[in-house]
Amino acid sequence: MKLNDLQTTSWTLARRAERMNPSVLREILKVTDRPGIISFAGGLPSARTFPVAAFADACANVLREDGEAALQYAASEGFAPLREQVARMLPWDVDPAQVLITTGSQQGLDLVAKVLVDSGSKVLVETPTYLGALQAFAPMEPEFVGIGADAEGIDVAELAAQRAGARFLYVLPNFQNPTGRTMSEARRQALVQAARELSLPIVEDNPYGELWFDAPPPLPLTARNPEGSIYLGSFSKVLAPGLRLGFLVAPPAIAPKLLQAKQAADLHSPSFNQRMVVDVMRDGFLDRHVPTIRALYKAQRDAMLAALTREMQGLDVRWNAPDGGMFLWARLPEGLDAVDLLPRAVERGVAFVPGAPFFAGPADTRALRLSFVTASQEQIAFGIATLAGVIREQLGHRP
Amino acid sequence: MKLNDLQTTSWTLARRAERMNPSVLREILKVTDRPGIISFAGGLPSARTFPVAAFADACANVLREDGEAALQYAASEGFAPLREQVARMLPWDVDPAQVLITTGSQQGLDLVAKVLVDSGSKVLVETPTYLGALQAFAPMEPEFVGIGADAEGIDVAELAAQRAGARFLYVLPNFQNPTGRTMSEARRQALVQAARELSLPIVEDNPYGELWFDAPPPLPLTARNPEGSIYLGSFSKVLAPGLRLGFLVAPPAIAPKLLQAKQAADLHSPSFNQRMVVDVMRDGFLDRHVPTIRALYKAQRDAMLAALTREMQGLDVRWNAPDGGMFLWARLPEGLDAVDLLPRAVERGVAFVPGAPFFAGPADTRALRLSFVTASQEQIAFGIATLAGVIREQLGHRP
Repeated sequence: MKLNDLQTTSWTLARRAERMNPSVLREILKVTDRPGIISFAGGLPSARTFPVAAFADACANVLREDGEAALQYAASEGFAPLREQVARMLPWDVDPAQVLITTGSQQGLDLVAKVLVDSGSKVLVETPTYLGALQAFAPMEPEFVGIGADAEGIDVAELAAQRAGARFLYVLPNFQNPTGRTMSEARRQALVQAARELSLPIVEDNPYGELWFDAPPPLPLTARNPEGSIYLGSFSKVLAPGLRLGFLVAPPAIAPKLLQAKQAADLHSPSFNQRMVVDVMRDGFLDRHVPTIRALYKAQRDAMLAALTREMQGLDVRWNAPDGGMFLWARLPEGLDAVDLLPRAVERGVAFVPGAPFFAGPADTRALRLSFVTASQEQIAFGIATLAGVIREQLGHRP
Repeated sequence: MKLNDLQTTSWTLARRAERMNPSVLREILKVTDRPGIISFAGGLPSARTFPVAAFADACANVLREDGEAALQYAASEGFAPLREQVARMLPWDVDPAQVLITTGSQQGLDLVAKVLVDSGSKVLVETPTYLGALQAFAPMEPEFVGIGADAEGIDVAELAAQRAGARFLYVLPNFQNPTGRTMSEARRQALVQAARELSLPIVEDNPYGELWFDAPPPLPLTARNPEGSIYLGSFSKVLAPGLRLGFLVAPPAIAPKLLQAKQAADLHSPSFNQRMVVDVMRDGFLDRHVPTIRALYKAQRDAMLAALTREMQGLDVRWNAPDGGMFLWARLPEGLDAVDLLPRAVERGVAFVPGAPFFAGPADTRALRLSFVTASQEQIAFGIATLAGVIREQLGHRP
């Protein structure tokens, strides 16, 4: 027995496991997730927006009317009424047969990588880009190529040089995570034209598109080029992330492979949750509910912009004013580094996310992401003032 | 516009996508899933066992007591009280920190393959084995090696010859899908000893272990060799599959990588569902509920065994008598092929699953899987009589 206890099994890890590392963000959030911290760090929607009572009704309805089916195994494609609802919601002609329900849109990224990425395949991404996409794609061992971007979106001119060997371009055109920026109409037109000319597939991720403040963003890229695009959507930001429901829309050329990858990955997304969402969305619920989220987030953004304008006076700090979503993107004065600043900010009770992990290539170490949706407006005012103090102090200590 | 319409984007599929094919089973089930068919084909638990009322109470409780957290993003590891509950349920010393909640145990298989399988890695499996595991592992491009087996489980003597280059042995020791067989105590001891000597990791899948009829199966392999094993479990057979909740228990050597793979795959399993299950399991619910499933499935098995004994008289059909689970394994007379027989059986209104797809290597074409849990006992009597008639007719037509 003693001998056996000493023996160690030799676990050989797959090569791809070397690419899997504890998320920098996750490690940061552990530190910042302590009581009393004012956090601009999280990527969470405001829990105040969750329609708890509507979900309670939906649960009761689903279990009363359709309990056994809701609790049974189901089709990998997803619950047909939910797929139909998704097709109807989208602003182009979508056949419900093209809609695949996923376990959050994060799973959509995993499936896309499985079906399209070989070890060493080039994957083009924005600079910066959604960290969770880099993590979802990484196990399939792509070579990431960051495409430059400005406030209107990616630099379309860079695409031609990177087309060879690229499996797709991953973009998040609306209220991007992390920058909050939105791709302009002109840039979308140019991108779709270039993608067609280069025959470059696009993977369009749109979790935040409904969270616009004054006007809806321009039409999705996929609406302009459905055969050349995969579209990823989510119920996490308009209803609640805890149900883990998203969807993807894929052209017939690859939809069957994505479905097979889905089946192998988790058989299907929870049947119960899919029925709950269908029940909640009855009678145009989202048309009444989503405007309340927009109004709340707009007020929160305004509070943060006002606080930044007030508190960062005299400091060379820059930030943008997103037209929707949950985040804004700021840049520290020359000589400061967001990763270095974070522990000092946390010491004073305020947290943010440094921008560096969002870059596939060389990082802008002065950049940081600020979420304006989870802290209260009072906390925003106090937290931004604190952050300004920390920056001022750091500038004083600069060598 | 016309020109653009004609342009086709060139989607390049990953090499692994060639390994993804429509599940044979899925295609079969499509045919058999029409009204009026008596189906022994499904892998579904009986919906009669789903505790619908208990779930309705749990939903209401969770949303009332903890609604916002239940609907919010959550930790990738899973809900702490559920991980603690899982650790307590298992018959060996498990630290909740080793428990990872998965989106069904199917996802556990996907994560295991991502972390342990490189293209060309050998993966050892039973003969026959769970088809869903072959599908979950296939995208990582393993080379499957089927290890021979008898009624007591795999042939341990074959392992040494296959150890070199093998990343792990995948086994389903209790009431196996598809055969219904259970690995004996002696075989478990021999297997664990061999695995230790060969330093061969074991992936133990145990979705059916609680569904024993007269006595619990022997202790899991992982309980005897926790450092050398990953254990996969599920709530699908003891509560309901529609929630998509399973778990895995992994040794510290690989638990962090599995967690990272989980995070990349779908961030976390639904927080709401995890809380529902914790709420339902309060006050020892499973101790009262699971015995009712055992009693039902035992009566169903008995009905099928009685029907087989009665109807297959004079035919050279063989079958086993599983001690638990949902399936039994039968073998047609010489000269018959289960894949050929299926459409004739479906024509007469009865369906089963041919055994061939469950073999990683050369298949037993006479084998078939019969589920005894979803058809009623009257349907079982009628369906088995019909099946016997089809077999008799086929034997008459034999060249």
